[in-house]
Amino acid sequence: MIKNLLVAQSGGPTAAINATLSGIIEGALSNPSIGTVYGAKYGIQGVLQENFKDLSGIQDIKELLETLAVTPAAALGSCRYKLKDPSIDSSEFQKIIEIFQKHNIGYFIYIGGNDSMDTVWKLSDYIKANNIPDIVVVGAPKTIDNDLYGIDHCPGFGSAAKYIATTVSELERELEVYDTPYVIVVEMMGRNAGWLTAAAALAEGANSNVPYLIYLEEHPFDMNDFISDVRGELSVGKDVIVAISEGIKDRSGKMICDYAERDQAKDAFGHTIATGAGRVLENAIRANIGCKVRYIELNLLQRCAGHLLSETDITESRELGRNAVKLAVECRNGVMSTLTRLPGDEYKVVYGAADISGIADREKKVPEEWITSEGNGVTEDMINYLKPLIQGELSCKYENGIPKYIVL
Amino acid sequence: MIKNLLVAQSGGPTAAINATLSGIIEGALSNPSIGTVYGAKYGIQGVLQENFKDLSGIQDIKELLETLAVTPAAALGSCRYKLKDPSIDSSEFQKIIEIFQKHNIGYFIYIGGNDSMDTVWKLSDYIKANNIPDIVVVGAPKTIDNDLYGIDHCPGFGSAAKYIATTVSELERELEVYDTPYVIVVEMMGRNAGWLTAAAALAEGANSNVPYLIYLEEHPFDMNDFISDVRGELSVGKDVIVAISEGIKDRSGKMICDYAERDQAKDAFGHTIATGAGRVLENAIRANIGCKVRYIELNLLQRCAGHLLSETDITESRELGRNAVKLAVECRNGVMSTLTRLPGDEYKVVYGAADISGIADREKKVPEEWITSEGNGVTEDMINYLKPLIQGELSCKYENGIPKYIVL
Repeated sequence: MIKNLLVAQSGGPTAAINATLSGIIEGALSNPSIGTVYGAKYGIQGVLQENFKDLSGIQDIKELLETLAVTPAAALGSCRYKLKDPSIDSSEFQKIIEIFQKHNIGYFIYIGGNDSMDTVWKLSDYIKANNIPDIVVVGAPKTIDNDLYGIDHCPGFGSAAKYIATTVSELERELEVYDTPYVIVVEMMGRNAGWLTAAAALAEGANSNVPYLIYLEEHPFDMNDFISDVRGELSVGKDVIVAISEGIKDRSGKMICDYAERDQAKDAFGHTIATGAGRVLENAIRANIGCKVRYIELNLLQRCAGHLLSETDITESRELGRNAVKLAVECRNGVMSTLTRLPGDEYKVVYGAADISGIADREKKVPEEWITSEGNGVTEDMINYLKPLIQGELSCKYENGIPKYIVL
Repeated sequence: MIKNLLVAQSGGPTAAINATLSGIIEGALSNPSIGTVYGAKYGIQGVLQENFKDLSGIQDIKELLETLAVTPAAALGSCRYKLKDPSIDSSEFQKIIEIFQKHNIGYFIYIGGNDSMDTVWKLSDYIKANNIPDIVVVGAPKTIDNDLYGIDHCPGFGSAAKYIATTVSELERELEVYDTPYVIVVEMMGRNAGWLTAAAALAEGANSNVPYLIYLEEHPFDMNDFISDVRGELSVGKDVIVAISEGIKDRSGKMICDYAERDQAKDAFGHTIATGAGRVLENAIRANIGCKVRYIELNLLQRCAGHLLSETDITESRELGRNAVKLAVECRNGVMSTLTRLPGDEYKVVYGAADISGIADREKKVPEEWITSEGNGVTEDMINYLKPLIQGELSCKYENGIPKYIVL
């Protein structure tokens, strides 16, 4: 029985979420059990609004899929919409199923992170509980945060990690230009997990012996220890790279960025000045050590850099998409497409499925044993885990000197 | 008569200053009139301290020069040291000449921006005024700010412009992800010239019809006009890119970033919170329009991105280095190596020399006629000027997924 496939994207954009979309469209178009391939715009919200786009009919689809695979951010659009608990209010679930049946959709693949996997869980559970026939819901992972359970590492993380390691190695060149002490504080995304920040360690030692001090959000941050760490490094060398997670907290659990006391910091128009943890650290270095210091917030740039992708990440993200189609056609309702790293010296992964119930709404933190006992660096095990994920360089295509991206 | 050549770098780092250094070393090594090629560490300060490095003796020099040409920041180090006026105190000049004579240096090439060309001017003038024989001083230009007189555009600017246009086109992908109004404010370097900010215009329309509002530091900034510009765009579409120079000022000449009233904005440790003009604009949008808004400061990243270079820029920067050697050997004391754009539809440049006296200590601003009358965009003439400078993609080399840069 031929059924149609619907795909949607959700959560924060990454540089690889479109590679997975590309893999899904590829897999679906070449699968004889699948009829039309639809994309819902703006995630589950677009599903509820029947905001569909027919992706099967696109001209020059092969070429488009290649460009789509290296286009950052969600080409179908995204949302941050959480479905209501069906045991309290199942009306949204009923509506979704009606829409699926109306369009003969037998396969729904949702690409996203923790919250999106919650949607996959609830929807696949609702289908099981109500014995709804011929509808399969499968999750496809993505998040630069790398905090999903059920998978060795997350699609999108490798490219963000490569962007971070590359950028930090370039800031290291800046640091060495003057003959006076200089500290650069780089702030990475990650309110709840420090994986991205740890990626800075990949650049340490590659081009010079500038020391890196790395503070992940999993380890309590102490301002006195920090100043003493920086002072220690400056007593033997002239430059330090400081890499921090935006979400670093002190022992009491207070966010370091909240030390900026937003209530008191207002501009001349009476508006609050928001600031990051890195600014607080920059100020502390200036006040306590007095050397040259600069705060760099990588911000959105670390997740949308289509011009600097990890080939490993994009290849895997695309394959996870193809694998999600395979799982859907095999009627694996309620699983997430996943990959497992094989043991051994050579980096190899295999693709499979993970039960969605163990994944949704949980965050995989950096294990404490991968952080040094001083809390200002990461261990060799962490480096070994990260290194394969940034291998290989892939870039967007350019037209007249400007990236050519796909807009669906 | 064989003389040695000394080269040094000065001012703020760029992604292309090492390409010029590479061209100078190349040109000097292949010139029979030149003996040893020395590099002074940390600019003119290093000259005064005789902190020299013999660059002729480096092994595998050919391969090194290729890598050096795509290594960002100043491989010899830099300084921001201004020589004293020789009519008041000529002791530094005497010392420099003595050092040159001691090391048989007949050619001194100084790579830098406005301030560095001031050094070239004073030093070459001192040599002329005192009839010092056999020492030639030549300037080689660089600055991402593109504000040097005597040259069509500055080495380093094209790569920074390409980084900006690329990054903005990626932020545009971010903007389009959600179905709600969203403004991204991107702040570019440029306290005294808006060239870099204008480069954002190169990305407009390349991938979608998201409107760009562009405010250069040359045009007085009015907050009411700004809010009305953004409101106007949001009345017809859902997204806006705002590109601003860090140095935008209001009609009275007050910097917009100073509206953050730094005195009042302090963190919990009692330290002032510095902030950029973009933060002030972000706050104003949030308070007056209330839509989603995000402030991105490109900061140092726009001048050190060795992973994303303009091929045109690197090729020209290197050639300007070779040309500087040629000028030195021709005894053109007191000139800057320069390039001129030829008239006609096809982009072509020729290399030559410009008298240093008309260049030092002056800043070339964006002409008012290249800014739209509303002050929120640039004209077609500006686009035509900028476009050739970002053509072609060049990247650093990678080793194990990390950029491989040259440390001298």
